[in-house]
Amino acid sequence: MLKLYIGNKNYSSWSMRPWVLLKQAGIPFEEVMVRFDSFGGDSNFKQTVGTVNPAGRVPALVDGDLSVWDSLAIAEYVAEQHPEKQLWPQAAKARARARSVCAEMHAGFGALRSHCPMNIEASLTEAGAIVWRDQQGVRDDLQRITEMWTALLQEHRGPMLFGEFTVADAYFAPVCMRIKSYGLPVPGPIAEYTQRVRELPGVKAWIDGALAEKDFVAFDEPYRTSR
Amino acid sequence: MLKLYIGNKNYSSWSMRPWVLLKQAGIPFEEVMVRFDSFGGDSNFKQTVGTVNPAGRVPALVDGDLSVWDSLAIAEYVAEQHPEKQLWPQAAKARARARSVCAEMHAGFGALRSHCPMNIEASLTEAGAIVWRDQQGVRDDLQRITEMWTALLQEHRGPMLFGEFTVADAYFAPVCMRIKSYGLPVPGPIAEYTQRVRELPGVKAWIDGALAEKDFVAFDEPYRTSR
Ligand SMILES: N[C@@H](CCC(=O)N[C@@H](CS)C(=O)NCC(=O)O)C(=O)O
Ligand SMILES: N[C@@H](CCC(=O)N[C@@H](CS)C(=O)NCC(=O)O)C(=O)O
Repeated sequence: MLKLYIGNKNYSSWSMRPWVLLKQAGIPFEEVMVRFDSFGGDSNFKQTVGTVNPAGRVPALVDGDLSVWDSLAIAEYVAEQHPEKQLWPQAAKARARARSVCAEMHAGFGALRSHCPMNIEASLTEAGAIVWRDQQGVRDDLQRITEMWTALLQEHRGPMLFGEFTVADAYFAPVCMRIKSYGLPVPGPIAEYTQRVRELPGVKAWIDGALAEKDFVAFDEPYRTSR
Repeated sequence: MLKLYIGNKNYSSWSMRPWVLLKQAGIPFEEVMVRFDSFGGDSNFKQTVGTVNPAGRVPALVDGDLSVWDSLAIAEYVAEQHPEKQLWPQAAKARARARSVCAEMHAGFGALRSHCPMNIEASLTEAGAIVWRDQQGVRDDLQRITEMWTALLQEHRGPMLFGEFTVADAYFAPVCMRIKSYGLPVPGPIAEYTQRVRELPGVKAWIDGALAEKDFVAFDEPYRTSR
């Protein structure tokens, strides 16, 4: 059985992507949650994750003696192993477009990622209002996301970015969580898309797991001192 | 014919990857070089690139009415369109591993990327020695790269990371350039691999183009005041 190593569900946006992808696609896997104690070399996190990923990060997917790391490589591997699940759009052009937006997310949106780290259980709308007021980079990132999603939802007529659920929706699921937690302002159709994503069974299952953790990881909490 | 939009060959490490991939694979394409004047919204660079990539960056690949952006999505698209070129390793496990290391490069090695920006024509060994002395992050990045390459070269017996040339070698080609320009210390077999990469016809052609540019882009020059 596939084994997916992940971090805390409340915080680990990169882990969320392949987990949601597998869950939503109905592909069985065993989850290995490695708590974020610290990212220091001798932390339990680094020691455990180091056994399956030489880069020392989550997520990592273990399939027998093969270890695949990095959320994007995991998505490609799973899509390739399960063509019947149609995890990428079937048309070559739409698929190229889906890979473009996933790769853009993978290396980009640094301002949004650093100023609004994922924190599913928290309501951070006050912090979000200040970030929104002060951080041009966050406004730019969200504007680009809004434009991207608007174009895709119109072109493919929803409900998901490429019509049906694909890797792209899993890839932007953490952004949907951040928009909610930080109360970031987006146009109506975009808010509705984020709501549809949060209601996908695979996403709901992750959210439920995050809410059940009741953990507080200080280095992922720029805006709270306790839960 | 495919059109590949790129930045200055001397500086644009992300552009180098798909260009080298196409060239080395012998896939015909037309190059559109958009000089780095500035990344401001009204720069010629942004105005031109904006017509083919809504994210406003190079590289972007145009195939008829399709535009694919981001180096990794371009690599996937080209590999998919040209299965006969075997741009990814043929074995599923090696392919998953190749995607893992490319994705790791795509989102990682931030210290190496920011302290040692690609600058093919320059000899920056003095700056490199200081960076090496002062920047733990650069030393960590290069250690990880050395371990990764050593393992892959041993396992696949070279000459390239996965035996024959694949996307992974194109993906790390800019790192091979940096190791040389900044004189970063690496073990013998790693230095030899970087030399083999620099001698690939597709890489040599890029280097020749970079040397012919004779351009100086100040915002990509933390260590020189002129050529
Ligand atoms: N590019 C990687 C990023 C993975 C990543 O940064 N994961 C975080 C947790 S969300 C991590 O493990 N950090 C540990 C560290 O940076 O030392 C991916 O897409 O999987
Ligand atoms: N993740 C992108 C990165 C592309 C990128 O950052 N390109 C640089 C030139 S090497 C650029 O166009 N920068 C313009 C900007 O950041 O505004 C890729 O892999 O293609």
